[in-house]
Amino acid sequence: MKIYDVPGFPNPLRVRIALAEKGLTDQVEFVKVDLLGGEHKEDAFLAKNPSGTVPVLELEDGVYISECTAITEYVDHLDGKPALTGATPRDKAVIHMMQKRAEAELIDAVADYFHYATPGLGPKIEDGKKTVWTGRDAFGRKQGDRAVAGMRYFDQILRDQPYVAGDQFSMADITVLGGLVFAGFAKLDVPEDCTALSAWRTRVQERPSVKAA
Amino acid sequence: MKIYDVPGFPNPLRVRIALAEKGLTDQVEFVKVDLLGGEHKEDAFLAKNPSGTVPVLELEDGVYISECTAITEYVDHLDGKPALTGATPRDKAVIHMMQKRAEAELIDAVADYFHYATPGLGPKIEDGKKTVWTGRDAFGRKQGDRAVAGMRYFDQILRDQPYVAGDQFSMADITVLGGLVFAGFAKLDVPEDCTALSAWRTRVQERPSVKAA
Repeated sequence: MKIYDVPGFPNPLRVRIALAEKGLTDQVEFVKVDLLGGEHKEDAFLAKNPSGTVPVLELEDGVYISECTAITEYVDHLDGKPALTGATPRDKAVIHMMQKRAEAELIDAVADYFHYATPGLGPKIEDGKKTVWTGRDAFGRKQGDRAVAGMRYFDQILRDQPYVAGDQFSMADITVLGGLVFAGFAKLDVPEDCTALSAWRTRVQERPSVKAA
Repeated sequence: MKIYDVPGFPNPLRVRIALAEKGLTDQVEFVKVDLLGGEHKEDAFLAKNPSGTVPVLELEDGVYISECTAITEYVDHLDGKPALTGATPRDKAVIHMMQKRAEAELIDAVADYFHYATPGLGPKIEDGKKTVWTGRDAFGRKQGDRAVAGMRYFDQILRDQPYVAGDQFSMADITVLGGLVFAGFAKLDVPEDCTALSAWRTRVQERPSVKAA
């Protein structure tokens, strides 16, 4: 397997944690994408992923898989023992629900805040977005508010259960962690009274997979 | 199982097609949500789904599952023979990738266009969104352009293969179909030269599951 990504970036981190959880990291060749140079918006990369996002997984047969959930489904099922995406119909449902919520209410909202309401990755990367439509700053700020509301939502969830989707660490935890890492980049602070979310973060950051990723 | 939804609406349709594909429709009690009256934004409904969207699945043990992908994962695995979400790691990955792309580039983009750049469901439902931020019309129009670009993307895909994720009908086809149904509501036409997409739609609409949903 080959993965095109950027070390340390939030969405690449999600897949790297999943790989480490499954003990698959050393089976992957990582290829660094020059995100700051705009490589992900060039034709050669868009042929791999028309959405122009990292990470992208390349399978042995040349098929490209983008989207963290899709890559995680792949690596989680390689050994026939899904540990991150749920083994039963009920677990699959709860994990996919919470992971989608973690995207919409946290990591994707943070990304919109970062790209539209802050200088983001700088003018070379962001200018295309800026010229397309007015109101981008207001949209970005709205999404920033949504992300902070998302933090409060997950804080409430984590007051009642150890992990985002219940009793087990899952893909949903990985997405929330990616969201908080991205929020750190974007200088969107976790509210101080979100003590359950902060305690969960400290605990999850101690996992070997997260330390290694 | 109980499903809270609105017959004929695009996202409810996705789950109803999945249920029909799996032969599970008659095992579900459908509860109609008064979307035009704003029921989905009231506390009783938000307790079931804090995102305030339909459909929501209620399991026998009282757990609520929202998000079409999560509900589809559930119903697809009940018989241990996943037919819509992929049986192999590779199929799961491709289907989840294409389904996510169908959300981001089509059905969610159409939804943003509908709610922000048109009168949407009318002032009682939409006004909350209108007052929160400026630039909403520009954002809505941008998302409308994105949805039409998404139609062109799926048209290209369907020139080379019979279904959105390859040789088999899957969750990704259901999402694209939901996107086109929503686009019809929002009066976003499929470009005339998207002949492969239109032919696929005609073919998919002939499936018993789609006719019944």
